Amino acid sequence: MTNNRFFSFVGGNSGPWRVTKIAAVTGEGLKDVDRLDVINDKLDSPPPNAPWMLRGVTSYQRYVNSAEHQQLAAVQPQLDRPEATRAALIPIKKSESWWHLSQDQRRRIFEERSAHIATGLKYLPAVARRLHHSYDLGEPFDFLTWFEYAPEHAADFEALVSELRQTEEWQYVTREVDLRLERA
Amino acid sequence: MTNNRFFSFVGGNSGPWRVTKIAAVTGEGLKDVDRLDVINDKLDSPPPNAPWMLRGVTSYQRYVNSAEHQQLAAVQPQLDRPEATRAALIPIKKSESWWHLSQDQRRRIFEERSAHIATGLKYLPAVARRLHHSYDLGEPFDFLTWFEYAPEHAADFEALVSELRQTEEWQYVTREVDLRLERA
Repeated sequence: MTNNRFFSFVGGNSGPWRVTKIAAVTGEGLKDVDRLDVINDKLDSPPPNAPWMLRGVTSYQRYVNSAEHQQLAAVQPQLDRPEATRAALIPIKKSESWWHLSQDQRRRIFEERSAHIATGLKYLPAVARRLHHSYDLGEPFDFLTWFEYAPEHAADFEALVSELRQTEEWQYVTREVDLRLERA
Repeated sequence: MTNNRFFSFVGGNSGPWRVTKIAAVTGEGLKDVDRLDVINDKLDSPPPNAPWMLRGVTSYQRYVNSAEHQQLAAVQPQLDRPEATRAALIPIKKSESWWHLSQDQRRRIFEERSAHIATGLKYLPAVARRLHHSYDLGEPFDFLTWFEYAPEHAADFEALVSELRQTEEWQYVTREVDLRLERA
């Protein structure tokens, strides 16, 4: 059952990331914790003393076309850059009406009308990102997006998040939590 | 962790479906069993005496556009029709090169060049179908497709399977098993 595309994000009192903010943006939030651990495996249950755990899997791209893929590949940075001491974990859940749309309808909202990919591109290579899919795992959120950036790009990251939240795509978001972190 | 989109297919000596054939089409096969049980839940491990278990989750459509969705919805039958006493379970795995393609490249191969949706439409409403996704669950196969049909449509079903296996899309299939079943 385990493969290396699985990640478990554990909120508790250990791990390399100190939690600086946990905000409920839409819907129910997550219990306050001091630390976040990121484990490249699918845990069956949260470790002792960890109030919560969120799991996701990296996967094939659902909306990016090949021209966009090449643009992204040319500029996207790796995770774990030494200067990237800030991180964010943004779990989101989308409505059933989103998931009932056909592929072309979702793509049209995602990119042609909300410019999700184009907006992300503007903030590269400052912000490194990894997307984890959770919808098909039966998890409370549909996506877990992990971001890493240097302190001097914190304002850029705020702008990115703010732009995306104003899009038509975000009208389908029924739950969103925003966690900010610093390397401990 | 459980939700009703999960299905577990259990090969063993119990269940409502008698196995009439288990053929390895490409790559490694599956151990011979007498019966198949279809459980609308995600089992953690196979029940006692069951040599294997395959799990998948029904999900949002990955390639179907809205016009195709409407065409399909107009003619696709429900599962569990009393006359549909034959069934097939066809687990397939695709290559890493398939999963590394962008969405538009996969769609082009899937439909514009392989006519996967159009081919399926020709055999509706004779053949009922449910697709289960397994790639993001870390399972040995990427898809489990379940079909139900009446004995008088058995030849149609053979034609459908044969047509799909000759497509460009099927060149990406690295493992395929073909199980045929009769209601016991």
